[in-house]
Amino acid sequence: MSLPLNPAMAATFAPPVMEARRWLQGVTFTHDRPLINVSQAAPVESPPLGLRQALAEAALSEGAAHLYGPVLGLPELRAEITAQWSVAYGGAISADQVAITQGCNQAFTAVMSTLAGAGDEVILPTPWYFNHKMWLDMQGVHAVPLATGADLLPDPEKAAALITPRTRAIALVSPNNPGGVEYPPALIAAFRDLCRARGLALILDETYRDFDSRDGRPHDLFTDPDWDDVLIHLYSFSKAYRLTGHRVGAVVASARQLAEVEKFLDTVAICPGQLGQIGALWGMRNLSQWVAGERAEILRRRAAMVAGFSALPDWRLMGCGAYFAYVEHPFASASPELAQRMVREAGVLMLPGTMFQPDSHAEGARQFRIAFANVDETGITALFDRLAGFAG
Amino acid sequence: MSLPLNPAMAATFAPPVMEARRWLQGVTFTHDRPLINVSQAAPVESPPLGLRQALAEAALSEGAAHLYGPVLGLPELRAEITAQWSVAYGGAISADQVAITQGCNQAFTAVMSTLAGAGDEVILPTPWYFNHKMWLDMQGVHAVPLATGADLLPDPEKAAALITPRTRAIALVSPNNPGGVEYPPALIAAFRDLCRARGLALILDETYRDFDSRDGRPHDLFTDPDWDDVLIHLYSFSKAYRLTGHRVGAVVASARQLAEVEKFLDTVAICPGQLGQIGALWGMRNLSQWVAGERAEILRRRAAMVAGFSALPDWRLMGCGAYFAYVEHPFASASPELAQRMVREAGVLMLPGTMFQPDSHAEGARQFRIAFANVDETGITALFDRLAGFAG
Repeated sequence: MSLPLNPAMAATFAPPVMEARRWLQGVTFTHDRPLINVSQAAPVESPPLGLRQALAEAALSEGAAHLYGPVLGLPELRAEITAQWSVAYGGAISADQVAITQGCNQAFTAVMSTLAGAGDEVILPTPWYFNHKMWLDMQGVHAVPLATGADLLPDPEKAAALITPRTRAIALVSPNNPGGVEYPPALIAAFRDLCRARGLALILDETYRDFDSRDGRPHDLFTDPDWDDVLIHLYSFSKAYRLTGHRVGAVVASARQLAEVEKFLDTVAICPGQLGQIGALWGMRNLSQWVAGERAEILRRRAAMVAGFSALPDWRLMGCGAYFAYVEHPFASASPELAQRMVREAGVLMLPGTMFQPDSHAEGARQFRIAFANVDETGITALFDRLAGFAG
Repeated sequence: MSLPLNPAMAATFAPPVMEARRWLQGVTFTHDRPLINVSQAAPVESPPLGLRQALAEAALSEGAAHLYGPVLGLPELRAEITAQWSVAYGGAISADQVAITQGCNQAFTAVMSTLAGAGDEVILPTPWYFNHKMWLDMQGVHAVPLATGADLLPDPEKAAALITPRTRAIALVSPNNPGGVEYPPALIAAFRDLCRARGLALILDETYRDFDSRDGRPHDLFTDPDWDDVLIHLYSFSKAYRLTGHRVGAVVASARQLAEVEKFLDTVAICPGQLGQIGALWGMRNLSQWVAGERAEILRRRAAMVAGFSALPDWRLMGCGAYFAYVEHPFASASPELAQRMVREAGVLMLPGTMFQPDSHAEGARQFRIAFANVDETGITALFDRLAGFAG
């Protein structure tokens, strides 16, 4: 006998990163030839000492760090975001437009719950971020794929053609996961205009913002005094301050929308973890120069990825930025099969493009995502040696 | 203009604890007559020093404490639960039947997502735990209220009469929030038998287990070798080790069900926070004697609550145990109005019974939940002085 199973959950695919980890089972790697794991966008090093000391001090203290806090997050952290981001984005963000979440995935699920229920539709450019797709699937919300072209940039006119009376939102990720492309400000503004004209929410996930190669603000949406009638902005503290294990993200949206978000977060989270928030706040106050150094290092690795693929002419680099390169491989076999053989034969773990789009998009079988941020320049050299030697 | 709003979210009530906090706005309390806040089930003191030191040591260290971990939680914590709870419950629990969550609310939402979607039904005894009701509302799942009588114990036969082809689960909380009653083992077994016979899941939330007044195991469900074909067990580390601010809970269920839970947790959480898990593990390994002392203190406070109400004969104590007393007041006015007046006139914040049941249950207007665990015996004496002096 078995328990009832929600059909929407049954129809949701299993976590891709966990599936990929299972490909490692039974495969031996040596000290001379270790696994090069470019499957997950996650720092592998610890936060800087000062941040760890701030966490440790709070952990040792008595008091609020161990207690429930406000559902929408630590007031000091919300205030710091308000102050810093109003400057950074050249707009007006107030503290009641900011909420803290247990990571950016939770931010997406909270926001989407306020917008769309079973039977509604949400437009996602493909290749998409698989956890976005998974949430929509398990909620019975129809994820409408918006195919992108060779440049991986979504087209607002094609998006407009996909809108129906059930459409509730368009969700963009820039810099893009998995595509690595940085969306031009004008493109983001065009999606904002489309969403506003059609009464949709524009969700803009800027988890990888701190590693954008462009200087200055990545878009002008917050300079519009009425930004909050259309925009819902998502952010993660995981990457900038290496806080993945502490689960801290943020939502910036209208106070009205956050009153709905608060219902979700109260029910799912009660409140964000306190230590993670304390770490994020310490980072915001103390680590801007350090993050600039991190960005410079990521940009060096990005340049090494671009150079590496220019020397592998059979492969085509479609997008490269922030943590990701998104590539087309030259082989006859499909990427899911190649990915598993690459583990065994080349000691490289990367995710096949099929994990980032619906089965109906045949191009996924020719594509891979390479999350290169964890791999230093020596590692990138080794990665290209192994790719060059992989027979497909 | 405003954004689309999911009607199920719009129909979900706002978080009661947040609403109650708003009643405090503009009310002044003095040093001589401070607020007695019995609205939330939350320790107000810090975890013991040893646990704080363990958290601080992990926070200061480099390594895994700062990184993503497995979706279903820290293997060492899952193993510790497996070992300790198999003994405590007299049954066989294996590590692949244990998952760690960001608090017990998340455990409920994860589990419920695997069982029920929009249009399905779940039976909840009333008075119910409001976050359970909120989750079902925002998911479009119909929460079917199972009214309890003067003893606050749900009746399996009445539950059986509520089952329809859309029923997916019955959720019990023992010791009960908000009722304070400890369900007899035979009652829990009768619900297990009912659920098994009808192909439903029995969700048993034992968040307050560590403060049960009875010695020995609270039920025999895990002694059944086939327990996992019907039972899903939920737990919180927040109360036993004062870890509310660190968000750690657990699910015990079949490995098959946890494969579905993993999809939800990957999408909403990616992984539980590492420091909270490290704290929970340290607590399990080191704090059993300390928790026994905490329990003894809660039982003293419980005795003081029972004695206090026996001296207030116009009030009727319906249930008292773990963190809660659930009472009937003697006044003509309704409990939501009385609760707000009690803040201003008696300096006491408690939640009205209306927050724990549907509007159609008129008895909520005559009831209050008193979360007394935070209030020491001096405070309980003061609470009863103020209740005795409150004119209604």
